[in-house]
Amino acid sequence: MDWKADIDAAALRIHDHILRTPTARVNGFGLDRAIEMKFEQTQHTGSFKVRGAFNSMLATDAPVAGYVAASGGNHGAAVAHAARALGRRAHIFVPEMAGPAKIALIRSTGAELTVVPGDYSGALRAAQGYEARTGAAQIHAYDAPLTVAGQGTCLREWEEQGLEADTVLIAVGGGGLIGGALAWLQGRRKVVAVEPETAATLHSALAAGPDTQVEASGIAANALGARRIGRICHRLATQYATNSILVPDDAIADAQRLLWCERRQLVEPAGAAALAALTWGAYRPGPGEKVAVLVCGANPEPDPFAQAGQLPAAGQPTIGAATRDISRE
Amino acid sequence: MDWKADIDAAALRIHDHILRTPTARVNGFGLDRAIEMKFEQTQHTGSFKVRGAFNSMLATDAPVAGYVAASGGNHGAAVAHAARALGRRAHIFVPEMAGPAKIALIRSTGAELTVVPGDYSGALRAAQGYEARTGAAQIHAYDAPLTVAGQGTCLREWEEQGLEADTVLIAVGGGGLIGGALAWLQGRRKVVAVEPETAATLHSALAAGPDTQVEASGIAANALGARRIGRICHRLATQYATNSILVPDDAIADAQRLLWCERRQLVEPAGAAALAALTWGAYRPGPGEKVAVLVCGANPEPDPFAQAGQLPAAGQPTIGAATRDISRE
Repeated sequence: MDWKADIDAAALRIHDHILRTPTARVNGFGLDRAIEMKFEQTQHTGSFKVRGAFNSMLATDAPVAGYVAASGGNHGAAVAHAARALGRRAHIFVPEMAGPAKIALIRSTGAELTVVPGDYSGALRAAQGYEARTGAAQIHAYDAPLTVAGQGTCLREWEEQGLEADTVLIAVGGGGLIGGALAWLQGRRKVVAVEPETAATLHSALAAGPDTQVEASGIAANALGARRIGRICHRLATQYATNSILVPDDAIADAQRLLWCERRQLVEPAGAAALAALTWGAYRPGPGEKVAVLVCGANPEPDPFAQAGQLPAAGQPTIGAATRDISRE
Repeated sequence: MDWKADIDAAALRIHDHILRTPTARVNGFGLDRAIEMKFEQTQHTGSFKVRGAFNSMLATDAPVAGYVAASGGNHGAAVAHAARALGRRAHIFVPEMAGPAKIALIRSTGAELTVVPGDYSGALRAAQGYEARTGAAQIHAYDAPLTVAGQGTCLREWEEQGLEADTVLIAVGGGGLIGGALAWLQGRRKVVAVEPETAATLHSALAAGPDTQVEASGIAANALGARRIGRICHRLATQYATNSILVPDDAIADAQRLLWCERRQLVEPAGAAALAALTWGAYRPGPGEKVAVLVCGANPEPDPFAQAGQLPAAGQPTIGAATRDISRE
C-alpha cells in the first residue's frame, strides 16, 4: 500500500467535514519537561473516529441499505454523525458496555441503534449479520484501510501544525489511530503505544502473535477494549518496531483528573491513557527527548450535562431515531 | 498611557509563567459561518486571570506582607497560583457566592483564604482593610493598569497565532479582559462586549455614566458580577465606541451546553457568555463579517471531579493552607 498517498487523499476527501483540532505546548502534570498535546477529543462527536468514518463513506458509493458499524461507542457515534451529515442511513451496533453516555450520543444523531449484550465482539457479529442480510456497507472501527487512512490524517494535520516531538504517545484499542499514525509517519518519529493493563491487545499480540485474544476489562474498556489487535495495526507496529507500554487503570484515572485540574479538559479514560504513560512513569523519555501526547476521546461516563439533569433539548437532533435493544428481547 | 508598550512588556514578563492557549477555527453551534475561538479557559487555574496576576507581581517588588486580592473566585485562584509559583504570600478574600468549586481551587494553592458574606463588593472592602492593616499589595481583579495590561496579552497572543476576525466577542464582568483587548487592539478590530442581563455593568455605565451601580445576580454572577464597571475599561470602551450586548441566563446555559456537546469544552457560565451572544442571536454579524469568540473561564460548579467523589489527592498541593471563614464568626 502507498499509505502516504492514501492519507493525503483521505485528508482532501474529509477536509470540509472535520475540524482541525487545536494543539498546545503544555507544561505541568508533574513532568520534567513541556510536552506537545493535540486535543483531538474536541473533534466532532468527541473523538478522532469521524476521520475514518468520513473517509470510508466518501471513498466509495453509498449502498442503498446505507452503512453498518459495530462499536464500543465512539466509532458508532462517528459513523452515525457522518451518515447524517451526508444524508445517508446508518445502523449502529453497540455492546451494553458502551454505557449510557455513548448510547445517548449515538441516539442523538438519528441513526438506527441496536444495543447488544456483552462486549464489542458480540456487537461486531451482530453488525456482520446485518451486513449479510441487508447489503449495508460495513465500516470497520479499526481494521480497514480506509478507516486507518482516515485516522492517519490526524498525525498529518499535527505535522502541518508544527509538531516538533521526537516521540508521540498514542492510546491503542484495536489500533486504528496508532495504525494511521505509523502509516503516516513511516518511522520519521517514534510512536509509543499505550494500553491499559486490562486491555493489552497490541502488547499481547507483539509478545505472542497477531491472533492473540485478550479479555478486555477496566475503565477504558468501551473505547480500548478490542479483543484482538487489528491486522493492519499489527503489521505496521511490527514493521516500525513499536513498543506497547501498559498502564494500570489507576494511572489512567489519575491522568484524567490531571487533564481536568491542570488543563480543564474533561476526557474519558481512553482519552487520558497516553498521558498516563508519562505521569505514571511507565514511559520515561530520555534527556532532551521531545514528547507529544495525543488526547483522543472525550465521551466520559456520566455525561456532565446528563448528570445535571440538563440533557440536550435543542441543537441535538433526534429526528428519525429508531432504537432497538436486543438485550431486552 | 502607552498601552502597546505596557502589554508588550507584560507579555515578556509573564512569558515563562503562562500557557499559550490553543485556538481553533470551528463550525457548528447552529451558526451560519465558522468562527475562530481561543480556549483561554485552559490557562493555569482555568481562566485568563493569571496573566494579570503574574504581570502585577513581576512588575513590582514584593512587599514582605505579600499580596492581597478580592475575587469572585477566578482572580483569587490566579493570584494564589502566581504567588505560590513565585514563592510569595497571598491572602485571598472571596464572597460566599464564589461557590465551593472556586473556593476549593483557591484552597488547593495553599494561599490564605477568607470567605466573606455577600457579594464581591464585601470581599473587596475586606481586602482593602487587610491591605491597610498589613501593607500587603492589593492586586485588583480588573481596575488596575498592570492587571489590564496582563489581560491584554491574551489578544496580543491571539494575533500572533493568526487571528483573522473582524470582530471579537468578549464577556465582561469588571472589564479587565475586554479592557486589555481594547487597549491592545486600539480599534484595529471591533470588540463586542457581552454581559448577562443580570450583571450588566458596562451596559449600564455606557447608558447612564461610569458610576452606575448594578445588583449582579444570575448564573455567571461569581465571575461577571462586579457592581460597577472598572474605570479603565469604561474609558477604553468609550474611546473605542464599544457596544455591550446583553444575553439572558438561559442563553448562557445553552451556550455552555453547546460548548460541551459540540466541542467537549466544559466551561463555567461566564466562559460561555460570549458564545451565547451569537447562538442566541443577540449579536448578528453582517454578511462576510469574520467573528471570533474568546472562551475565558472553566471553573464550573460543581467541579466534575469533586462531584464524582474524586477530589484531587495527589498533584494539588494543599501545603500551608490556612482558611478562615468570617461568615461563620
